[in-house]
Amino acid sequence: MAQSTAASHKIYLNGSRPDLRVPTREVTLTGGNPPLRLYDTSGPCTDPDTQIDLKRGLPPLRLAWILGRGDVEELSGPTSSYRRRRDEDPSLGGVRFASVRLPHRAKPGSRVTQMHYARRGEITPEMEFVALREGMAPDIVRDEVARGRAILPANVNHPETEPMIIGRKFLVKINANIGNSAVASSIEEEVEKMTWATRWGADTVMDLSTGKNIHETREWILRNSPVPIGTVPIYQALEKVGGRAEELTWDVYRDTLVEQAEQGVDYFTIHAGVLLRYIPLTAKRVTGIVSRGGSIMAKWCLAHHAESFLYTHFREICEIMAAYDVAFSLGDGLRPGCTADANDEAQFAELDTLGELTRIAWDHDAQVMIEGPGHVPMHLIKENMDRQLEVCHEAPFYTLGPLTTDVAPGYDHITSAIGAAMIGWFGTAMLCYVTPKEHLGLPNKKDVKDGVIAYKIAAHAADLAKGHPRAREWDDALSKARFEFRWEDQFNLSLDPETAREFHDETLPADGAKLAHFCSMCGPHFCSMKITQDVRDYAAKHGIAAETAALVQGLRDKAAEFRKSGGEIYRRA
Amino acid sequence: MAQSTAASHKIYLNGSRPDLRVPTREVTLTGGNPPLRLYDTSGPCTDPDTQIDLKRGLPPLRLAWILGRGDVEELSGPTSSYRRRRDEDPSLGGVRFASVRLPHRAKPGSRVTQMHYARRGEITPEMEFVALREGMAPDIVRDEVARGRAILPANVNHPETEPMIIGRKFLVKINANIGNSAVASSIEEEVEKMTWATRWGADTVMDLSTGKNIHETREWILRNSPVPIGTVPIYQALEKVGGRAEELTWDVYRDTLVEQAEQGVDYFTIHAGVLLRYIPLTAKRVTGIVSRGGSIMAKWCLAHHAESFLYTHFREICEIMAAYDVAFSLGDGLRPGCTADANDEAQFAELDTLGELTRIAWDHDAQVMIEGPGHVPMHLIKENMDRQLEVCHEAPFYTLGPLTTDVAPGYDHITSAIGAAMIGWFGTAMLCYVTPKEHLGLPNKKDVKDGVIAYKIAAHAADLAKGHPRAREWDDALSKARFEFRWEDQFNLSLDPETAREFHDETLPADGAKLAHFCSMCGPHFCSMKITQDVRDYAAKHGIAAETAALVQGLRDKAAEFRKSGGEIYRRA
Repeated sequence: MAQSTAASHKIYLNGSRPDLRVPTREVTLTGGNPPLRLYDTSGPCTDPDTQIDLKRGLPPLRLAWILGRGDVEELSGPTSSYRRRRDEDPSLGGVRFASVRLPHRAKPGSRVTQMHYARRGEITPEMEFVALREGMAPDIVRDEVARGRAILPANVNHPETEPMIIGRKFLVKINANIGNSAVASSIEEEVEKMTWATRWGADTVMDLSTGKNIHETREWILRNSPVPIGTVPIYQALEKVGGRAEELTWDVYRDTLVEQAEQGVDYFTIHAGVLLRYIPLTAKRVTGIVSRGGSIMAKWCLAHHAESFLYTHFREICEIMAAYDVAFSLGDGLRPGCTADANDEAQFAELDTLGELTRIAWDHDAQVMIEGPGHVPMHLIKENMDRQLEVCHEAPFYTLGPLTTDVAPGYDHITSAIGAAMIGWFGTAMLCYVTPKEHLGLPNKKDVKDGVIAYKIAAHAADLAKGHPRAREWDDALSKARFEFRWEDQFNLSLDPETAREFHDETLPADGAKLAHFCSMCGPHFCSMKITQDVRDYAAKHGIAAETAALVQGLRDKAAEFRKSGGEIYRRA
Repeated sequence: MAQSTAASHKIYLNGSRPDLRVPTREVTLTGGNPPLRLYDTSGPCTDPDTQIDLKRGLPPLRLAWILGRGDVEELSGPTSSYRRRRDEDPSLGGVRFASVRLPHRAKPGSRVTQMHYARRGEITPEMEFVALREGMAPDIVRDEVARGRAILPANVNHPETEPMIIGRKFLVKINANIGNSAVASSIEEEVEKMTWATRWGADTVMDLSTGKNIHETREWILRNSPVPIGTVPIYQALEKVGGRAEELTWDVYRDTLVEQAEQGVDYFTIHAGVLLRYIPLTAKRVTGIVSRGGSIMAKWCLAHHAESFLYTHFREICEIMAAYDVAFSLGDGLRPGCTADANDEAQFAELDTLGELTRIAWDHDAQVMIEGPGHVPMHLIKENMDRQLEVCHEAPFYTLGPLTTDVAPGYDHITSAIGAAMIGWFGTAMLCYVTPKEHLGLPNKKDVKDGVIAYKIAAHAADLAKGHPRAREWDDALSKARFEFRWEDQFNLSLDPETAREFHDETLPADGAKLAHFCSMCGPHFCSMKITQDVRDYAAKHGIAAETAALVQGLRDKAAEFRKSGGEIYRRA
């Protein structure tokens, strides 16, 4: 498990206290070029100095910070009645994680959210960690969290997380969904998918399990995850009532929230914006309601002819979120399921309600992000982003793709990477990945990797377009390596070094070819980069560079001007 | 070879004359749904009624139309001296295509381009074919070709082509590059890649061969290609002078143009915009000049301290183009090779020159498209399109991607599909595909397919965003099949039915699963589409639909309004 990527190693940036060490992946380069440090989501398992034991879980990095604030109490045991029954069930001994830590919760009268601290003006160790990780000033992190424009998911019961931030002033993040279903897959597979996803760059992981042993699967994932974990609690609540949506109750749901909050889930998708009066707006859609949570709530609302308990009990939910620091991911239960249904009245009506709920959550110092579509043709993407910012008061947007066409099942990582890159550029803070298996089946390990890579591309393309200061240096380092025929550097700087190397070796496997001043595509006579170097040599020899010094100076000035305008944190479209 | 896609068959639309039959692929649907007709680039080889023999080539569909115009003469033999030497070389017997047709050329004083006919007000059979194929009025096709806003590549020596059009009022097209190099691949492989590329949807194919037997490879490809073939003649010219750019001459180049025009190449990439004074503008770039043709010409210009023969002999080139109807693809020799170099002075200086050359070509009735980048971060893409339309007088734009980041070698079909979809939406008429092997090696068959599929996605997403009337019906048919659990229809309507079916079967292989009202992702309780249907049933039973009839009517009006505004051929961003 303790693998490190070729020619790169983990380097820690030291913060203001000895236990504040921010991991980065440093890529060693040849030819006298300085090493490049890349954002690293892979956690301790890529650190050769750390012993990984899945049965014990990761070290609780943040525990001292959490306890040091003095505002949580250790409970004598889990308070969820479902959890207690599971813990006492002897038949689950084989699948249960041998947890030893008791859950924490805010002391009565306390709120333990990062938003709460930020609003008090505090820079927590978590915020400092994030600031170092993003190359930002800590007060910007604090101010964005205080303003609700960014969230820092950090459940007090998930001290294993390496803090990260989701907000549009920061690097665009990606989420990978995993989870077993009634039909297939096991606990081991899901833990492995989680580790695999973070290895390739997933910033958060959602466990969308709907099969049996949901509780135990989640525990294994949480204890071994260096990234925040999200869930959709209504899935488990539905299992508890035998799959009959109309039998869901506030009590069952509330107990599920507490059960998961005490395990350490960092954010909950909650479809509280599906109101009774919005459901008929979906009647004439091509694909109706496609959000699982949304359709469950719609069924409940119609069966009871009442607003859902998610909506009527929203303030109580906020109190639970604030007591453990679980962030809201307000679900878009009425998101479009095909391009024909994009940006319709149902979608935007729900968005308005999500904006109202955001304000209420913020009254409780609960952190909030807003989920977005789905399936949207390119010309309707920007409207989504602009409306979300407006009606949800700039709470971070977290979109699923969007897919820009419906005609390519089997390739929806691509149909959606197009929409994801665009909406990321426009301001979406986190992109939920889509794998090639979307609409067809459960993703296996290869699909998880393909989905993560497609979304790292989308997120990074968005960072470049937004002018994030850290984004350009990566592209430039790789392009320079390419131009100088430093093949090994080019591979090592790639998002996926193994694949880059393998593709190269398919045509020109000899090690000598990696030093060659041409590649298999063009051969020696046709390599444009080789010819350009000849041109430069010629120009230098004949003094052409001197003749055109004025022109070159002009270019240099332009470049400086560009860098200067890019020096702002964001250049928005 | 005569394969047809599952549940679809070739249907011909009949034009005004018996030999004018436009192929479409009709997908049969179940559940009483009408069949859907899709644009079909695969040519006669997917028609079970046609006997395919690679050694004889495809039937010369357009020959009667070409001869019927009475403006070409049959030559007594090829007029290129190089070609004559090849034809006489006994050692090439094993690789030579047993061609029997003599080349045609415009009679003295005639111009035989589609632009020439269009400007005279004629609707040629080629234009009528295209109009039926696109679902457009023939006079729009004629007017766009006459105005230079679209090209209809149709060399008189490539009568095997099924006419297609490249222009922003029409469906966005894609090109697939194939071609052997000095390092690898054979004639058989290249012909197979061409057939394979058109099978998956390539609208044109460029043969970029740089290895040996370029001439013979091209002949095999042309005689078997149902789509227009493009080339970069400077590659072959360079081979003829032993790979020494400075030894290139106008005579060698001219003979190469004639050689290829008489074989039937439909468009030539010509880097005539690389002027001596632009070369120093690339001196400080991160990756210099990355266009192979551009770097060859730059080397020539510097070595001779003179403008290139492509520029100084441009009018003579125009005359050759007009005599065979070869379209110009004015090459962007100074396109950026990394995101850092995008939209710089060098790129835009060359673009201005391409605009001037366009006017000159149009004076000769020669058809013109303009090549574009390359590597461009998202926020700089639109500027490319807008400037191209302005300075090149709305001649069609033909871009390579663009790649929106440089950090993902091995996945550049995705980094570039993002840019391609966007620039296609903004107005690019044809997208040159990029395969996963870009920057690393030569594409094999799998890479060709992956590149074509990624670009079909980009082109179709662009068509949707542009509001092309034919685009939406495909998405809607597939989405409706998805909602109604018509799994087989969903597979058959996919861009890649085999992959969609295979992915589905990985998790739920039983045939019964394809009738199931749920899939492996969610299982029976969690399927949102299933629940939505329950919701609709419930609503219908309880008269909720009636209560909300007014709301629904409002939605319907909105939809009608949307369709009305989409009824224009183009809704531009």
